[in-house]
Amino acid sequence: MDGITPLDALIEHFNALPGIGKKTAMRLAYHVLDMDAARAKSLAQAIVNAKERIGLCRICYNISDTDPCRICQSTRRDKSVICVVEKPQDVAAVERMRNYHGLYHVLHGVLSPLNGVGPNDIRFKELVERLADGTVKEVIVATNPNVEGEATAMYAARLLKPLGVKVTRIASGLPIGGDMELADEVTVAKAIENRREI
Amino acid sequence: MDGITPLDALIEHFNALPGIGKKTAMRLAYHVLDMDAARAKSLAQAIVNAKERIGLCRICYNISDTDPCRICQSTRRDKSVICVVEKPQDVAAVERMRNYHGLYHVLHGVLSPLNGVGPNDIRFKELVERLADGTVKEVIVATNPNVEGEATAMYAARLLKPLGVKVTRIASGLPIGGDMELADEVTVAKAIENRREI
Repeated sequence: MDGITPLDALIEHFNALPGIGKKTAMRLAYHVLDMDAARAKSLAQAIVNAKERIGLCRICYNISDTDPCRICQSTRRDKSVICVVEKPQDVAAVERMRNYHGLYHVLHGVLSPLNGVGPNDIRFKELVERLADGTVKEVIVATNPNVEGEATAMYAARLLKPLGVKVTRIASGLPIGGDMELADEVTVAKAIENRREI
Repeated sequence: MDGITPLDALIEHFNALPGIGKKTAMRLAYHVLDMDAARAKSLAQAIVNAKERIGLCRICYNISDTDPCRICQSTRRDKSVICVVEKPQDVAAVERMRNYHGLYHVLHGVLSPLNGVGPNDIRFKELVERLADGTVKEVIVATNPNVEGEATAMYAARLLKPLGVKVTRIASGLPIGGDMELADEVTVAKAIENRREI
């Protein structure tokens, strides 16, 4: 009669994960009980492993189980380009595309004065330091196309251009497969503003 | 360069859970990386604990971390009634209602000749054994209201009635808050067939 059973405890843990409601948490917990023991142990171990073995790369601040990360260590990457992103998931998104061969820099946030996030609260200084030896010729700012992402891009441009690097911004416009009719007006405006001759 | 990183391993484990697609698995894995270490360990431990400490009650075959389970051990439950369900989740559903005070019996399946599931493949014999001492006066068959659940209920009635117990079946009809217009015809037919005077 300790009040909380191991099953309740597991349901609560699952329920605490983002996007996992009470019902899904219950379904997952019962599924774990149905798994064979080795499989359940392996799931638990994967959680511990990920947490223990993954840290931040000392160069680009992406998550990695090696330091520097595999991308920073690679001899096949173009060291003259850095793609700046908000979070590690964004590196994964660009890598999935398979045709970007430069390096990355993960800011771990965006400038957001309203939320009290200034340049010193994200990995901005570390980005500037990487430009010191002159290897990097271009910085592609791939923060999200929203107010904070744009502000961060503007700030980066103002700060980095004087250092002699080209600062570029990812294009905004209609997503491939998108629909003019369904697109919001800001996106349509951007798509027209950024039109190019064909 | 072992091919699979701890992050990929964790994503795969999450992706293997029911109803968790690739994108959700990635979101969950990144969330684990963001958790503090103690919390992640606690999640992993909850999985191991649930698996190691939960087994089946020797009386009702519900999942439990005690044996017999708390319900079978309780002196406050009515031992003259057994509610027969398909799976442990169904016990949880009835318990949530908070006004059933009898015992349970979990079959761990339903009769399904097409899938080769006969009475010996579910905990049927164990149910019959529980009726031997004459304490039980009523067996409520709460298998799901579908073909297999009904067949199981019919089988139970035929087998248990001769032993002198009352065998009842949960009602089928429109769910509370349901809508005649949206209900399927079999449910509407059942609701009308099972009508009662008011």
